[in-house]
Amino acid sequence: MAGTAQIGVTGLAVMGRNLARNFARHGYTVALHNRTASRTHDLVEQFGHEGTFVPAETAEEFVAALERPRRLVIMVKAGTPTDAVIDEFAPLLEPGDMIIDGGNAHYADTRRREAALRERGLHFVGTGISGGEEGALNGPSIMPGGSKESYESLGPMLETISAKAADGSPCCTYIGTDGAGHFVKMVHNGIEYADMQLIAEAYDLLRHGAGYEPARIAEVFRGWNAGRLDSYLIEITAEVLAHVDAATGRPFVDVVLDQAEQKGTGRWTVQIALDLGVPVSGIAEAVFARSLSGHADLRAVGRGLAGPTPVPLPEGEAERFSEQVEQALYASKVVSYTQGFHQLQAAGAEYDWTLDLGAIAGIWRGGCIIRAAFLDRITAAYAKDAALPSLLADEQFAAELGAAQDAWRTVVATAARLGIPVPGFATALSYYDALRAPRLPAALTQGQRDFFGAHTYHRVDRDGVFHTKWSEGRAEEQQS
Amino acid sequence: MAGTAQIGVTGLAVMGRNLARNFARHGYTVALHNRTASRTHDLVEQFGHEGTFVPAETAEEFVAALERPRRLVIMVKAGTPTDAVIDEFAPLLEPGDMIIDGGNAHYADTRRREAALRERGLHFVGTGISGGEEGALNGPSIMPGGSKESYESLGPMLETISAKAADGSPCCTYIGTDGAGHFVKMVHNGIEYADMQLIAEAYDLLRHGAGYEPARIAEVFRGWNAGRLDSYLIEITAEVLAHVDAATGRPFVDVVLDQAEQKGTGRWTVQIALDLGVPVSGIAEAVFARSLSGHADLRAVGRGLAGPTPVPLPEGEAERFSEQVEQALYASKVVSYTQGFHQLQAAGAEYDWTLDLGAIAGIWRGGCIIRAAFLDRITAAYAKDAALPSLLADEQFAAELGAAQDAWRTVVATAARLGIPVPGFATALSYYDALRAPRLPAALTQGQRDFFGAHTYHRVDRDGVFHTKWSEGRAEEQQS
Repeated sequence: MAGTAQIGVTGLAVMGRNLARNFARHGYTVALHNRTASRTHDLVEQFGHEGTFVPAETAEEFVAALERPRRLVIMVKAGTPTDAVIDEFAPLLEPGDMIIDGGNAHYADTRRREAALRERGLHFVGTGISGGEEGALNGPSIMPGGSKESYESLGPMLETISAKAADGSPCCTYIGTDGAGHFVKMVHNGIEYADMQLIAEAYDLLRHGAGYEPARIAEVFRGWNAGRLDSYLIEITAEVLAHVDAATGRPFVDVVLDQAEQKGTGRWTVQIALDLGVPVSGIAEAVFARSLSGHADLRAVGRGLAGPTPVPLPEGEAERFSEQVEQALYASKVVSYTQGFHQLQAAGAEYDWTLDLGAIAGIWRGGCIIRAAFLDRITAAYAKDAALPSLLADEQFAAELGAAQDAWRTVVATAARLGIPVPGFATALSYYDALRAPRLPAALTQGQRDFFGAHTYHRVDRDGVFHTKWSEGRAEEQQS
Repeated sequence: MAGTAQIGVTGLAVMGRNLARNFARHGYTVALHNRTASRTHDLVEQFGHEGTFVPAETAEEFVAALERPRRLVIMVKAGTPTDAVIDEFAPLLEPGDMIIDGGNAHYADTRRREAALRERGLHFVGTGISGGEEGALNGPSIMPGGSKESYESLGPMLETISAKAADGSPCCTYIGTDGAGHFVKMVHNGIEYADMQLIAEAYDLLRHGAGYEPARIAEVFRGWNAGRLDSYLIEITAEVLAHVDAATGRPFVDVVLDQAEQKGTGRWTVQIALDLGVPVSGIAEAVFARSLSGHADLRAVGRGLAGPTPVPLPEGEAERFSEQVEQALYASKVVSYTQGFHQLQAAGAEYDWTLDLGAIAGIWRGGCIIRAAFLDRITAAYAKDAALPSLLADEQFAAELGAAQDAWRTVVATAARLGIPVPGFATALSYYDALRAPRLPAALTQGQRDFFGAHTYHRVDRDGVFHTKWSEGRAEEQQS
């Protein structure tokens, strides 16, 4: 009574449709299902020639079309729609079958769903899929969580349809149990926010500091894309900046309303980092910068505030400044990846995921928005030392930041003087300098906390917990 | 069958005990209850002479001791203990009675509890109480939420025991329905984090930039405390910095381990601000700075990173720099209050609380950790215009920041050059400059989002939602 389809996709909006086509193009027989059957038939009609599809009208037909163990991919909206579809299909499945959620679920939901389905003998694979519509069709970066057993059966198929890195290796690897896949996808998105914010600041500095026009800045980015910053986001920045608006003849970037929107995974990343006690200030500043840009009412107020109007630098200085901005951008980027990987490491410890951080960097080299040559370097760093406490502990990254820091400082200082906001560059530099500091003023903070709240403190020279009787002669007492 | 006590306190750990004594000292008859009765008896034995206490051994006796409508204050640990106590007492109460939770509850829990008790005809008052043990005894800042009706009966008592501002007005006012009181207390704590971080940065700059010793910095803070920065936190900073460790003869701040701890309300403030779309970067940087300080392993790595070692400025310059640091501190402080009050405003709109922002600033003038002369200025700003979209829209604050911004820029730039981390000062300046900006690079961010994800954009010159067909001739299409 088992069918012949190796994989089934339910939910045939653009992401699901493209993923189904991707499987079919790679020779897999793909069962198709959608709440409204017309979408299923449209897909077969339009793309049936690309491979073998088995359309199903009902949930029962769909399940019957799948070979055992069944592999059923859900591509519906994250949240209650996902639960509804799971509730619909789980009763029709048998032990050993697997449900794969390819949506942008919150990892805590994935943990809950995995536990519930495990009880019923089913595998639940929460998987991050990055690369948008185009990636789903031609090769995304895939981050599957769930049981190792499920990966043995499902992994080879996912690796086949995934993007391939420059060295040919698939941009898909087993991430870890339960919510690990969706967690890693979330942090990927958080890093994407930080990357985009740093690029935005670099552009702003070149525009208002160096005084370059968008077309010229596009050239600068093209140049950077030939170096260590080589990446999809730098590449498309050049494309966007070079684009001229047909209606007005003005640079496209000047006719776009300067209010950035967001969909939520950046915010989640920061909220969860706060729970984990991991400073991800680069991602936080990126999320805040977007929300600030959207507060038109506050900005209307702010335009009246006093401050300098940047005067473009003379040509020779502008060129030098542009090189310094590249250094600041690179250094800040390394810091935000350092923070993101710190969050992955902390989550791995918290949830008992044995995350292979080098392999995770490896599968981001293709298919996804943050794909970059630079990720090879992260893989290499973890290959040298899998227990690296921080990316900044890697000799090569440390040496590069050491070489970049003079320029980085100049750029942050110049931005402050010119009145150009650089929250991303500045927080990255502060993180770097705080890590370097032999002593932090956190000692004063602890002293204050002991003063007003008897919160106690530790000493540098003796073990124990201490409190000073501030209002009674200031004697110190050891509490434990 | 109703008793004579106007108020009852259950949970007689130090906060509950001190609050009960405060009520009694002001002439109220106070019923007392604690899970272990010995604490109740100890209180009566030690402090019975301070007023009229009615000790109760059982929940029934406690409830019977209270006059109608009953006012029952819960002073237990936030979380499940609070629910347990509510579940114990609610069945013993009658319609119109009120339960007051004076713990540090999450406002979402308070909303849930209020709704559940309202169903049963009971009033639930979630109230922020700030000022620690000492405040609870001698006058805290009190932020009660709940029904207006409950405030009519309870408010006068809370106002009586609250701290008094310099002009004699009570540091207690009705905040708003359900979770409003605990929300406002949470933001108070978030602002406290930011204040403390900014002070820590100012200290660090004076220590390593100006090259001053702690005793001298204590003098500087004492001076600042005589000016516009006059506040409890500045005052105790001077005390802490002037303190010499008896065991070693070294400045106390140098023997305290430089790892700052936290209890969670700062983190909550940031997490909720992210949900509300409010940039509270100053609070976020403060929370991150504390968590970074505690990562001893990362800091051990970081000490090897290259960077400048600050060389103290020559005496004349140091003095000038010290004045500039005061300006930067004041300006950054205004920004973090601006962000915190923006969060209050957004929460008011989200939850239909009609928050009186000027009155809230007013009740923080006494009793609580962030008490400061400066809060009068916020009250005045909202008195002039209750619908002020931002504190920076107030002429006087705008003028002060305009006057401070040169020094502020110098301080941030100097810190970058010297290698002193100033995440709080820098993010405040970026916020100020982003608000000032006629155009933000968020336009580029939106362009990128449209390029890789077809997320669309708005234009500056026409209404509508647009998408550029990036891979097909770059024609623009209007989507709606």
